[in-house]
Amino acid sequence: MKKIIYGCAYYDEYMPFDRIDEDIRMMNKAGINTVRIAESTWSTEQPKEDVFDFSSVIKVMDKMEEAGIDVIIGTPTYAVPYWLAHKYPDIMADTSRGKALYGARQLMDISNPDYRRAAETIIRRLMEVTCKRKCVIGYQIDNETKYYDAANPGVQNAFVRYLRDRFHDDLDAMNHTFGLSYWSNRITDWDIFPDVRGSVNGSLKGEFDKFRRSLVDEFLAWQAAIVREYKRDDQFITHNFDFEWRGYSYGIQPMVNHFHASKALTIAGCDIYHPTQDLLSGAEIAFGGDVTRSLKQDNYFVLETEAHGFPNWLPYDGQLRLQAYSHLASGADAVCYWHWHSIHNSAETYWMGILTHDFAESSIYQAVCETGQELKKTGHLLAGLKKHNQTAVLVSNESLTALNNFPIDMDSSFTGHTFYNDIVRWIYDALYQMNIECDFITPETEDLSRYSMIAVPALYDADEAVLNRLDTFVKEGGTLIATFKTAYADTDTKVYPYTKPHILHRTFGLSYNEFTFPRNVILKDKDGICGQAEVFMELLKPETAETILSYEHPSWGRYTAAAVNRYGKGNAYYLGTMFSQDLLKKIICKAAAGAGIKTEGGFPLIIRRGTTSEAGELSYYFNYSQDELTFKAPDEKTADLLSGREFSAGETLTLKPWSLYILQKK
Amino acid sequence: MKKIIYGCAYYDEYMPFDRIDEDIRMMNKAGINTVRIAESTWSTEQPKEDVFDFSSVIKVMDKMEEAGIDVIIGTPTYAVPYWLAHKYPDIMADTSRGKALYGARQLMDISNPDYRRAAETIIRRLMEVTCKRKCVIGYQIDNETKYYDAANPGVQNAFVRYLRDRFHDDLDAMNHTFGLSYWSNRITDWDIFPDVRGSVNGSLKGEFDKFRRSLVDEFLAWQAAIVREYKRDDQFITHNFDFEWRGYSYGIQPMVNHFHASKALTIAGCDIYHPTQDLLSGAEIAFGGDVTRSLKQDNYFVLETEAHGFPNWLPYDGQLRLQAYSHLASGADAVCYWHWHSIHNSAETYWMGILTHDFAESSIYQAVCETGQELKKTGHLLAGLKKHNQTAVLVSNESLTALNNFPIDMDSSFTGHTFYNDIVRWIYDALYQMNIECDFITPETEDLSRYSMIAVPALYDADEAVLNRLDTFVKEGGTLIATFKTAYADTDTKVYPYTKPHILHRTFGLSYNEFTFPRNVILKDKDGICGQAEVFMELLKPETAETILSYEHPSWGRYTAAAVNRYGKGNAYYLGTMFSQDLLKKIICKAAAGAGIKTEGGFPLIIRRGTTSEAGELSYYFNYSQDELTFKAPDEKTADLLSGREFSAGETLTLKPWSLYILQKK
Amino acid sequence: MKKIIYGCAYYDEYMPFDRIDEDIRMMNKAGINTVRIAESTWSTEQPKEDVFDFSSVIKVMDKMEEAGIDVIIGTPTYAVPYWLAHKYPDIMADTSRGKALYGARQLMDISNPDYRRAAETIIRRLMEVTCKRKCVIGYQIDNETKYYDAANPGVQNAFVRYLRDRFHDDLDAMNHTFGLSYWSNRITDWDIFPDVRGSVNGSLKGEFDKFRRSLVDEFLAWQAAIVREYKRDDQFITHNFDFEWRGYSYGIQPMVNHFHASKALTIAGCDIYHPTQDLLSGAEIAFGGDVTRSLKQDNYFVLETEAHGFPNWLPYDGQLRLQAYSHLASGADAVCYWHWHSIHNSAETYWMGILTHDFAESSIYQAVCETGQELKKTGHLLAGLKKHNQTAVLVSNESLTALNNFPIDMDSSFTGHTFYNDIVRWIYDALYQMNIECDFITPETEDLSRYSMIAVPALYDADEAVLNRLDTFVKEGGTLIATFKTAYADTDTKVYPYTKPHILHRTFGLSYNEFTFPRNVILKDKDGICGQAEVFMELLKPETAETILSYEHPSWGRYTAAAVNRYGKGNAYYLGTMFSQDLLKKIICKAAAGAGIKTEGGFPLIIRRGTTSEAGELSYYFNYSQDELTFKAPDEKTADLLSGREFSAGETLTLKPWSLYILQKK
Repeated sequence: MKKIIYGCAYYDEYMPFDRIDEDIRMMNKAGINTVRIAESTWSTEQPKEDVFDFSSVIKVMDKMEEAGIDVIIGTPTYAVPYWLAHKYPDIMADTSRGKALYGARQLMDISNPDYRRAAETIIRRLMEVTCKRKCVIGYQIDNETKYYDAANPGVQNAFVRYLRDRFHDDLDAMNHTFGLSYWSNRITDWDIFPDVRGSVNGSLKGEFDKFRRSLVDEFLAWQAAIVREYKRDDQFITHNFDFEWRGYSYGIQPMVNHFHASKALTIAGCDIYHPTQDLLSGAEIAFGGDVTRSLKQDNYFVLETEAHGFPNWLPYDGQLRLQAYSHLASGADAVCYWHWHSIHNSAETYWMGILTHDFAESSIYQAVCETGQELKKTGHLLAGLKKHNQTAVLVSNESLTALNNFPIDMDSSFTGHTFYNDIVRWIYDALYQMNIECDFITPETEDLSRYSMIAVPALYDADEAVLNRLDTFVKEGGTLIATFKTAYADTDTKVYPYTKPHILHRTFGLSYNEFTFPRNVILKDKDGICGQAEVFMELLKPETAETILSYEHPSWGRYTAAAVNRYGKGNAYYLGTMFSQDLLKKIICKAAAGAGIKTEGGFPLIIRRGTTSEAGELSYYFNYSQDELTFKAPDEKTADLLSGREFSAGETLTLKPWSLYILQKK
Repeated sequence: MKKIIYGCAYYDEYMPFDRIDEDIRMMNKAGINTVRIAESTWSTEQPKEDVFDFSSVIKVMDKMEEAGIDVIIGTPTYAVPYWLAHKYPDIMADTSRGKALYGARQLMDISNPDYRRAAETIIRRLMEVTCKRKCVIGYQIDNETKYYDAANPGVQNAFVRYLRDRFHDDLDAMNHTFGLSYWSNRITDWDIFPDVRGSVNGSLKGEFDKFRRSLVDEFLAWQAAIVREYKRDDQFITHNFDFEWRGYSYGIQPMVNHFHASKALTIAGCDIYHPTQDLLSGAEIAFGGDVTRSLKQDNYFVLETEAHGFPNWLPYDGQLRLQAYSHLASGADAVCYWHWHSIHNSAETYWMGILTHDFAESSIYQAVCETGQELKKTGHLLAGLKKHNQTAVLVSNESLTALNNFPIDMDSSFTGHTFYNDIVRWIYDALYQMNIECDFITPETEDLSRYSMIAVPALYDADEAVLNRLDTFVKEGGTLIATFKTAYADTDTKVYPYTKPHILHRTFGLSYNEFTFPRNVILKDKDGICGQAEVFMELLKPETAETILSYEHPSWGRYTAAAVNRYGKGNAYYLGTMFSQDLLKKIICKAAAGAGIKTEGGFPLIIRRGTTSEAGELSYYFNYSQDELTFKAPDEKTADLLSGREFSAGETLTLKPWSLYILQKK
Repeated sequence: MKKIIYGCAYYDEYMPFDRIDEDIRMMNKAGINTVRIAESTWSTEQPKEDVFDFSSVIKVMDKMEEAGIDVIIGTPTYAVPYWLAHKYPDIMADTSRGKALYGARQLMDISNPDYRRAAETIIRRLMEVTCKRKCVIGYQIDNETKYYDAANPGVQNAFVRYLRDRFHDDLDAMNHTFGLSYWSNRITDWDIFPDVRGSVNGSLKGEFDKFRRSLVDEFLAWQAAIVREYKRDDQFITHNFDFEWRGYSYGIQPMVNHFHASKALTIAGCDIYHPTQDLLSGAEIAFGGDVTRSLKQDNYFVLETEAHGFPNWLPYDGQLRLQAYSHLASGADAVCYWHWHSIHNSAETYWMGILTHDFAESSIYQAVCETGQELKKTGHLLAGLKKHNQTAVLVSNESLTALNNFPIDMDSSFTGHTFYNDIVRWIYDALYQMNIECDFITPETEDLSRYSMIAVPALYDADEAVLNRLDTFVKEGGTLIATFKTAYADTDTKVYPYTKPHILHRTFGLSYNEFTFPRNVILKDKDGICGQAEVFMELLKPETAETILSYEHPSWGRYTAAAVNRYGKGNAYYLGTMFSQDLLKKIICKAAAGAGIKTEGGFPLIIRRGTTSEAGELSYYFNYSQDELTFKAPDEKTADLLSGREFSAGETLTLKPWSLYILQKK
């Protein structure tokens, strides 16, 4: 029978005193059915190069097995022991801020051969100890792997080999592609290649980052291969991907191509941290979930999320439960908290767990109990939620990197404040708030015909293949919405020397060659003033397109701000500037209607749907606010799967603050 | 006969031309009776390793002796000559920002043996030249000594030896105490110990800082021992301690335990710099004075304070005199300005002295003259002021360091803006403004029964002994006021895995396990809304305590914000959140009344009292404002010691802006 | 026949594909008559130490010659190829931020002998290829040369040799001059000299910067000498000086003494970048132009300015043309854009050229065409504009450096926000807005009698010679306006130990010895409140001077804020504090009237005048606003040189937004 993994990270090694029996008692009471262990504790498991000690791992497996709690084993490779860093100083990452000092985790060169040899040893030993254990349901390889900005000589040499291969040893071809004639940067000997950290060349730096993302793919595939030598068929391999961090999980991860790296896994996983209290919107839960579900187009694990986390994340009454179901509503089959207990020393003392520092039954623990007990009863109905979304958002690591090098609002100080993920979230959050559910796709996604509508935020770096695919998508009836800064450069971050947006100018029926930053520029639609241009504005010149928004300004008044083009059988919307989310939602609403996508409700009433094999079609209704919400029940008889309450068709329902229904046809 | 030292630092070495005779004439006119010399001029006194030249020291002593001006000799060891730094590059501090370049002072490793050997030589030579001189009344050893964040190999090796000693070579004990299992940081070989600068472990880093503070104790004791070999019995040994610097002397010094380090001295000394003009409140003068007086529970020297200082500190009419008497009112027996003349080159050109750059009789000089002449007449009556305060504030270097590693309002960006001294000053300034005079005590203070009321700001790191002493203090009738973040961790910055506040939860009759940051959280007392929660809030659950303040909030409304507990014969106030100083003063007022402490006046009318052997009881009345103040004279006949004016009991007195009376019973 | 060079930088090397024929067609259409080439492309011209390839230079010369377009050749030495940096790592600048990594340009030690040898080779080879070419009208040596904060051992050793020479090996003299006794910094052995980057001594650091500025003089003279060996008499030598960069060309360049460095040239040149759109005022165009014209007291080249530049600089309708004529109105004989095409890779992708990335005929290109075609017709009348200004502004690199070390509003955090150029621009912009045209002079300018009025912003470092010259200037009838912070220190940044302003206190009839920062200090003139003191205030004590502005304040009310002194036959104004530009203009207006200087119009109606050999007296009238302006025509019959329109005397003329007239007597 399918079930929801309701779990947490468990660190017996960090406990101030032995309390595993009491912990298990409290876990059982709380409905915690899985613990994730071992992923940070290499120095405990191998205190010296030739000394291994898995006693804490074995103890926890023994106890959990006895208590009927499942175990996920994490390979401990993301935090190296000091004896290793000391013996092989080259392991430590040499980044744009210099050589890392030992201390924090995730500060090594993951391609370093000495690191790899040591990692292989600890992985194999750990597999031997764990792979046959009944309680062990799967493996997480490494944790939040990234390339950590490592630019060690080994990494740079490998990059040069990669370039020689790519350019067939043709230096002129590389110099031309990257534009290295500029400022006398031509490279004229493969054997003397400058340290990439000093480069001012956005194309070369972008290629270096792309190459370094591929190191993550290779590293995870390498770990997975080792694990596969040992693991049983019923044991999964997952990884805990994380997102761009802006004090919480904000956007696409710059240092990993999740779509590539997840190929090594049997099931995708991630961590999602987000603001709570008045700032809880569910947007990060949905965003991270939609991305991770899209990786393998299947259910996924939330391997870490906050029960409590930072003091400012202490959930209001109802929020913890609301959050847990929000993960499930995106297709998660696991909700695991980081972590069981709040630790008493070191850096993350205030990244708090389910248990407060006193191990008491705090309000958080009680909220976990309430949720866990409920999931015990309903989890099998909710697990394995499938979606058939009509909408997709197209994202690109290459565009992200390029717009880090060329911030959208970069001025003559060479700094800017608006980056790729700001645009991704501008678009995504509008969709989320309108209850238009979506998948994520990439420039490599071949088949776009599955979708009725595709949103393309700032696809700055774009090869011609994806542009042609998008053109065809519209021609054949799709609805496309793209923003400014799309189709501007190729995937070498070399600006196309052609009409913009490249190729798509015919799709959108417009073009431009100039752009500026708005300063008191008002936007008008056919009904009059409707907002203000923000951050960046392209001066659009429609040909076949119909203007939706225009600028009010002495010099820019002759240009268009946003337009729609009927093209082939489809519609193509182009947004040449940024503006309020309310105005954005108005435009998307029209586009969605044209694409045959129905919308219902809207933030703070969030609706998410799907189908499970045991419960059929399910509609989650979430109240993301401190106020009571009323809304109309569906036009058929339904029941709330959680409370069993039945509702007649069209009845007015009330949702308490931070609460939910899961409606099922009756 | 006792007297007030009214002095200044004098740098003959920095003069653009010889003018010592004119300087002495102006000093005499100004009532300057003491100069402090030699503490910054090692390179003049020893231009090369084997060349010594004390001619400027001798010249100044000769001239001062002749003029009847006393001399304090400072050992010049806080500013090393370049020949020394060049010969022994290891002397320069290697800090968390890397190896210091030679230039500024206070950039060396004070434990370096080459530095020590050179320092000993210059100290002994200087002692030989000065110790027999009549004018020399005492010595200042080094200046504003700190450990300068030096993490040189020598310091780190000594730290490892200290740890081996503390933990009896038991690595497991250390790993467990500091929680080094976290992120694989276990240390498994004493011989390969990671550079502490890379550590993310707040416990290990805290211990390193505590160890480095002990280097200051040892250094000053070592200097004092050398000086003692030479000095006469009538010559004192002092040191110029400084405070946490936030553009002025703000709070407890992080890099020195003043209570420990002052053991090497015969009299405590410090420097106090503070805002003036509209921002002059006297709070820093009182704070620094109360701390320094508490070190040896005796009178102390203000070895540096501003006559002029930075341009924004140019005093308004009356302020310089007001400041001088404010120092005396805290128990200072010396008020020395830094410095006599404003220097004409180098870094501190705009840290101006008594004389402006033109050496003219500026308004500052005139204010010094007025004050100096007055002190000539009255100094013997004012010197040696003793206090018998009923109130103490308990401060802790360990808590300061711990809350630097874990800022009170640290969020998921791992940064915060509220630190230990913010809380210390929140409490202290309320007491100051209410004219409740206090001493400072530490967790090591054994006898608390001297006090009626003890205030404990954010005693985050606390051993159980001090917590038990505080519990007993209340039980036996004392009044305790503690803030949030008290009794949370032990002195290894390891959070107590028990009910909070640890041990004191019974004293305060309440507990909590959760806390958050307030966001529009209103505070209410029994009369209604009285303020807003700020910075941090604990969700208090009273048991026997009576709620004083509660939160108004949908989720936190069930918790208490502040409470008082009748416990044994005493009262214990616990403040679970921060709020306005007006509200704080209201609570302290009630607490003080209960403790039998009378309050009178209030900022800007500041009253400070004490007793001197020659004048008996004295009451200083200060007007810290630009407005005239009126207040009622005491209920007995008094006279102003400065003007001789007599006042009848209860008469209405008027204080001009920035002026004072010193009232004496008649 | 004289002509205006209307040109641009052209980088065939950066083109994504060959399009030189199309570029030349578009240049011809646009009236572009000159291209500047080769100054950034060393690695193309010399891909390896022993391989030279001038094919792109030759190709461009061939094509341009054929098309009748002139060529300026830039030596490529400001951007070194990597093979050079790799072979001689010492070439890379070692700055206060550490050793530079290869990548950006302008990161080398220009005095390094290996760099010099390689630079000489490439210059000689380039000269051989180009010097005989008809199209080559002149040379630009290097580009925006500065000392790049290089403090390499070679630079520091040369500095020590310079000091030994200056002080005749007398260490005591140096220690005394720089005040090195302070903090034990005395240097007692020439052979062990501390790294100047660690120094806290403003005098030593100032001298180091002055020495490093002299390296630029020497470097340019060295390049010019090489070029002179080859060049024809009709070929000029120029250089592209740049200004202090605050996101645009703001003020005097800290790292070059333009007056000294320009001695190597036959004609001065510079680049000027400035805000546009609503922020376009013309002030930077006038400032940079007035400075550069003053270098050789002759016409000059604007070798770079923006056609488009950063997105936020996209000009409004009319602005590009307005800007071009504004350069001519200051005496420029060349207006060259940077650059022809917007590049498609690397750092400056968004520092856009005349052509947008798609090479289309954008609005910018059209504005260039309009201007270029007009200049074809009128250029010969406008070229060689001469001025005979009655006003001069005295500027000083030494004062700039000194006030970087001692910011005007530096407080006890040792940071400040107001620097030398803020005061220069405060004064200059007032003059500019009042249409009082001026030259720039330096402390070395001997003959001041050419001017009726001299403005002296913050001449902090001043030798007695210039102070005496200024005194004489007033005595003999001149009008002097000086600000606070003038005549405070000598040129070693050693504060004068005398009455301030040194020497000039007799000229201004006032003195002061104290100063502070204003905090709510109101200014009053004889009519009442007229403003507020800002940033800094000296407490002036007039002797013979008459107070213009006084402070309203309880303590500072007895001092004067600004005063005028009738002295000899002249008038001397001293401004002891900063205030609004409106109030400043009121004071300057009175001073100018007294000096016999007529003012007319005022921003946004900017008037600039001069005489050309072909057109006689010309008056440029600019409308620097989005609104139409009306003004009265001169009292004689005139015609607009551009449109041919004639105006009768005193007629009311209308200027469209961002437009101009060039009025000529008829």
